Amino acid sequence: MQYHPRYAGYEDKVRQSFSRQNLMQTISAEMASIEPGLCKITAPILETQRQQHGFAHAGLTFAIGDSAAGYSALSLMDEAAEVLTVEMKINLLAPAAGESLIAIGRVVKPGRRLIVVSAEVFARNAGEDTLVALLQGTMIPTE
Amino acid sequence: MQYHPRYAGYEDKVRQSFSRQNLMQTISAEMASIEPGLCKITAPILETQRQQHGFAHAGLTFAIGDSAAGYSALSLMDEAAEVLTVEMKINLLAPAAGESLIAIGRVVKPGRRLIVVSAEVFARNAGEDTLVALLQGTMIPTE
Amino acid sequence: MQYHPRYAGYEDKVRQSFSRQNLMQTISAEMASIEPGLCKITAPILETQRQQHGFAHAGLTFAIGDSAAGYSALSLMDEAAEVLTVEMKINLLAPAAGESLIAIGRVVKPGRRLIVVSAEVFARNAGEDTLVALLQGTMIPTE
Amino acid sequence: MQYHPRYAGYEDKVRQSFSRQNLMQTISAEMASIEPGLCKITAPILETQRQQHGFAHAGLTFAIGDSAAGYSALSLMDEAAEVLTVEMKINLLAPAAGESLIAIGRVVKPGRRLIVVSAEVFARNAGEDTLVALLQGTMIPTE
Repeated sequence: MQYHPRYAGYEDKVRQSFSRQNLMQTISAEMASIEPGLCKITAPILETQRQQHGFAHAGLTFAIGDSAAGYSALSLMDEAAEVLTVEMKINLLAPAAGESLIAIGRVVKPGRRLIVVSAEVFARNAGEDTLVALLQGTMIPTE
Repeated sequence: MQYHPRYAGYEDKVRQSFSRQNLMQTISAEMASIEPGLCKITAPILETQRQQHGFAHAGLTFAIGDSAAGYSALSLMDEAAEVLTVEMKINLLAPAAGESLIAIGRVVKPGRRLIVVSAEVFARNAGEDTLVALLQGTMIPTE
Repeated sequence: MQYHPRYAGYEDKVRQSFSRQNLMQTISAEMASIEPGLCKITAPILETQRQQHGFAHAGLTFAIGDSAAGYSALSLMDEAAEVLTVEMKINLLAPAAGESLIAIGRVVKPGRRLIVVSAEVFARNAGEDTLVALLQGTMIPTE
Repeated sequence: MQYHPRYAGYEDKVRQSFSRQNLMQTISAEMASIEPGLCKITAPILETQRQQHGFAHAGLTFAIGDSAAGYSALSLMDEAAEVLTVEMKINLLAPAAGESLIAIGRVVKPGRRLIVVSAEVFARNAGEDTLVALLQGTMIPTE
């Protein structure tokens, strides 16, 4: 689906919002790309972000999936708006083994009151990407 | 609901599993209590774990809610089992403002193949607790 | 939690809305009770509403759980509003065997823009009630 | 994704299971197509299946989305297995206005113990299809 942003500077605003999220800095996440209704975030699977089996913690997988989904929504909102997660469902498909995670968030259904989003999270292991999580949720603009 | 653990040392096993989760250490989380089918985890809202408005990041809220739910399930599993999250849904009810988060995870329906769980997450602000998130999901024992 | 309706005639409005839902009549559902933020709906497990094993179809379980949750929300909305489901998650806990289903819907977090709700669905079998489903979702008032 | 069924007669088994679901007959649903990991179900929006605004009831939308997802999973299971929904999340994107609903269910991640599925539901109105719901969930084989 092709979406159109509401104003020219949407990319700057999204990137500034991302840079103010301390958690994203803590986990060394980067916004790899942002287009209208589509956002890609990557993060290394740091030692500090693992669970008891050495895989990425579900909290990390959720954090970058939710953020990619949220920023895909923010890219279509008004200039003054910020974005909040109303609800998010995550299905974990495979252990998140490897060096890094890649989250791709998409707007499924834009709207003035609510935006429905989804995200896929992949784990990159020795050059190969495995789908490890699927998210589906709802974003709301702040008033 | 009153649940019965399958062996005497369940508490030790749960606490050891928790202590091996690097992410839980990274966010300074503590397992405040563990009983059969019930687990309480607390974590400070560190500067490093905030989003752009200064509240706890949804990734942090999810991480401790999911962990409390998962360990409530692990307390009822066999001695050799570990626990994995199959899926988790989170509804965010209010901004997570304050000094710390408190997650209470519960087993809703135990089972041999799957365990249905829920969790409430509260934000503690100047001595007052506000419900900020509700989680509902499914856990599976590792084989 | 104790909730207060916004106007005196909320019960009449909720019951009128319920009576205009053809599907609720098709499945012989009844609104057993409605209080501020709390709604109970019952329905027989008709032959026409079963799945291939003779249990209530998940579609029926969802329908009355979602409706009980939705009407618990409507009881707290403005007089002119109607209610729509934004999203709903259902965990199915046990086969829905028996004569009838009983759904209890509750408001978890009221709000002007969105209302977070939950519902429990029980199956009544020879006088005994078994929890068969747990729902958690979001309702929105029509504009 | 290309999936391979475990035995030649999967289509017959899936269609027989579908034909034994009374609810599917009650709502005049038809299994339009079944391939390995992919299932399409259609149903008219009967007067008996509407909500108070004349749109398809969310219970109907859920029922055919969940069934399409479930049968996409069943097509990949062993010959003796039947399928149960563990959990399902539905986001309702637009009012289900029109003459009929079309649900397309897909296997996202096959597995021996669990199968992750998704479904899209479209409403057909005067020859035009609108996406009205998105489902994401988990199926389990009966033992």
